Amino acid sequence: MGGTPPRSPLAPDHFPDLPVVGGVRFASAAAGVKYQGRDDVMLAVLAPGTVVAGVFTRSATRSAPVLDCQAKIGATSGEAAAIIVNSGNANAFTGRNGAEATKAVTTAVAAATGVPEGRVFSSSTGVIGEPLPHAKITAVLQDMNTSLSETGIAEAAAAIMTTDTFPKGAGAEVSIDGQTVHIAGIAKGSGMIAPDMATMLVYLFTDATIPQEALQALVSDINARSFNCITVDSDTSTSDTLLMAATGASGVDVTDNAAFAEALEGVMLDLAHQVVRDGEGATKFVTVAVTGAASDSDARTHALAIANSPLVKTAIAGEDPNWGRIVMAIGKSGAAANRDLLQIRFGDVLVAENGWVSPEYREEQGAAIMQKPEIDIHVDIGLGQGTATVWTCDLTHGYITINADYRS
Amino acid sequence: MGGTPPRSPLAPDHFPDLPVVGGVRFASAAAGVKYQGRDDVMLAVLAPGTVVAGVFTRSATRSAPVLDCQAKIGATSGEAAAIIVNSGNANAFTGRNGAEATKAVTTAVAAATGVPEGRVFSSSTGVIGEPLPHAKITAVLQDMNTSLSETGIAEAAAAIMTTDTFPKGAGAEVSIDGQTVHIAGIAKGSGMIAPDMATMLVYLFTDATIPQEALQALVSDINARSFNCITVDSDTSTSDTLLMAATGASGVDVTDNAAFAEALEGVMLDLAHQVVRDGEGATKFVTVAVTGAASDSDARTHALAIANSPLVKTAIAGEDPNWGRIVMAIGKSGAAANRDLLQIRFGDVLVAENGWVSPEYREEQGAAIMQKPEIDIHVDIGLGQGTATVWTCDLTHGYITINADYRS
Repeated sequence: MGGTPPRSPLAPDHFPDLPVVGGVRFASAAAGVKYQGRDDVMLAVLAPGTVVAGVFTRSATRSAPVLDCQAKIGATSGEAAAIIVNSGNANAFTGRNGAEATKAVTTAVAAATGVPEGRVFSSSTGVIGEPLPHAKITAVLQDMNTSLSETGIAEAAAAIMTTDTFPKGAGAEVSIDGQTVHIAGIAKGSGMIAPDMATMLVYLFTDATIPQEALQALVSDINARSFNCITVDSDTSTSDTLLMAATGASGVDVTDNAAFAEALEGVMLDLAHQVVRDGEGATKFVTVAVTGAASDSDARTHALAIANSPLVKTAIAGEDPNWGRIVMAIGKSGAAANRDLLQIRFGDVLVAENGWVSPEYREEQGAAIMQKPEIDIHVDIGLGQGTATVWTCDLTHGYITINADYRS
Repeated sequence: MGGTPPRSPLAPDHFPDLPVVGGVRFASAAAGVKYQGRDDVMLAVLAPGTVVAGVFTRSATRSAPVLDCQAKIGATSGEAAAIIVNSGNANAFTGRNGAEATKAVTTAVAAATGVPEGRVFSSSTGVIGEPLPHAKITAVLQDMNTSLSETGIAEAAAAIMTTDTFPKGAGAEVSIDGQTVHIAGIAKGSGMIAPDMATMLVYLFTDATIPQEALQALVSDINARSFNCITVDSDTSTSDTLLMAATGASGVDVTDNAAFAEALEGVMLDLAHQVVRDGEGATKFVTVAVTGAASDSDARTHALAIANSPLVKTAIAGEDPNWGRIVMAIGKSGAAANRDLLQIRFGDVLVAENGWVSPEYREEQGAAIMQKPEIDIHVDIGLGQGTATVWTCDLTHGYITINADYRS
């Protein structure tokens, strides 16, 4: 693509000031994998004693680095660990070459950092089906190892961007028994974003102490309500990876600690929403809340049918309060619904009920809400207690422009 | 929308010369339901002895006319029948008012034509959620009844258009035992087109003789391989209706006749393909064939995942042979696949095999195929004997333009 795409109109004002997480050091470098004139590799080195949990894409065509991470993720040990990520090339659908490239990178990281190779987790993001030029990455590792810094997380967030228009970060501090635990996370993602997976690339760090199994359970649970509830375009990546590292440097055990879980969920939701805000071509941030479904699963099916409908998404792009298309999406979803029990709201405005437009509703009310950059759609199915909330963006000319010529 | 959208670049040169079908007479009129300066109502009156079969949307929010047709479709009788269709308003999600409007229209058709009201089938297509101004339709029925003609099918095809850029018709003649049976059909559809339903509005006529149950079975069977195998945007309409009327005027019984079934399948496929060729914003007609899947059902899941992927469809719009996105779509579909057994072809060109790009493949080959207006994508999954073929179009700026402001 020629030139840098403009920053999303839904982007936050600036990258947040993230807390320093004890036991985590970052480095970034420009290896020239595909992009020129910017960093495209990040390295995070994690102190001995760190436990690592992960969630990964369920794609049947998942990439070589994902398969490698999955093979390593259960390993608990007292040793150091490392995360190496490149942008510009996904090393996906690259055959035997893909596994060899991943091995070359993780072996070189182990040699440069002294971390055991079985504790080196890698991700690659970018174009699918082209061989990863791994020598470009391994060539910069020695320099990266000497420039590791506890404060390098913002540069790391920028290095992993592809079609992203802004780097994504979120953090929290939690006080537990008079001591402070820190959480910091970064993410990348803009297109090929759909739930039913770990989603995109997400790296979370904390200096809390927690057993690997407990961390894995916590991350998987929150992931189901955060990253697995966003969609940009219904297309699921081959490379989606979420890794969370707990170094234990704070000495504070957070096993079963509600405050820590709440803070982590806040960080993960923040990052997930930032991915939607950077959805390719997005001009609207849309929250779709479904209540009253026969089950939570049905609620999710309805919410995703609305959030993934091209007709709903283009109506939002056009600031058209076209609630008929929401009725259509519910009807096609396959989950239980009764036309005459639906209630549809835009923001606080009741739009439709009793199988028809609400008698009090005025088109100007809906139109005013559609002009906002953040839009809430609430559908009550009227059948039961099932609920779900998903987040998405609109479908615009910008999405077509970005994706009709991505590789050239 | 301002002005008439340009005719699809994939449209046929002209509306076909359709055979006259004995026992079927057509009329069209401008009732001003929504559109001005064009016909927007069609009436077909079917001779006594006609049997009628139908397939309808499975949407949970289906429209009042669909519900009315479904209630009537099983009725076999020796009486005459009628089909009344308006464009500009779908009479969907219009509450009790919707059923009342449908009743008003079908009762008025019965009064004007002498057909029993229980044999009057109606369809409405257009905007969802606005009350149908049924008095505008009933006001023109007497005049329509006096202008019925066996040769009025082309005008009927034009009267039922909404965002369609060309009227859609197809026909066939079948010789059976020295006698000739005629088939003629029309369809409308351009957006909100996805399988798992009858799809859009389709009206088929034949002068063959066949019992209602046999006609219903035949139409349902062929529908599964034609209209249910097309997708424009993955969005399923609330109004999709296919009706087929067999008048028996030829006196030729076609029950279990293979030649008739083959001719009917040709007509239905032709109409289904015309709907895709008029997909909103379409510039490419795309055939997605999947073979070697674990089952036919899995093959269909893979084919639809490819055909509905926004990233695949935008790549095709950009004439980008981005086969990596096809790998992605297969991976996310949920059906069984093994990355290393896939074979992907664009036209006759083998693009990928053995988990990677084919060593003989050159990007120029793929690029040349992508520049054509008709593109064949063939994926062999390498697991079994399951096959499926679906048809779709690309996703372009035109789709966004049409749908971002449909109601204004």
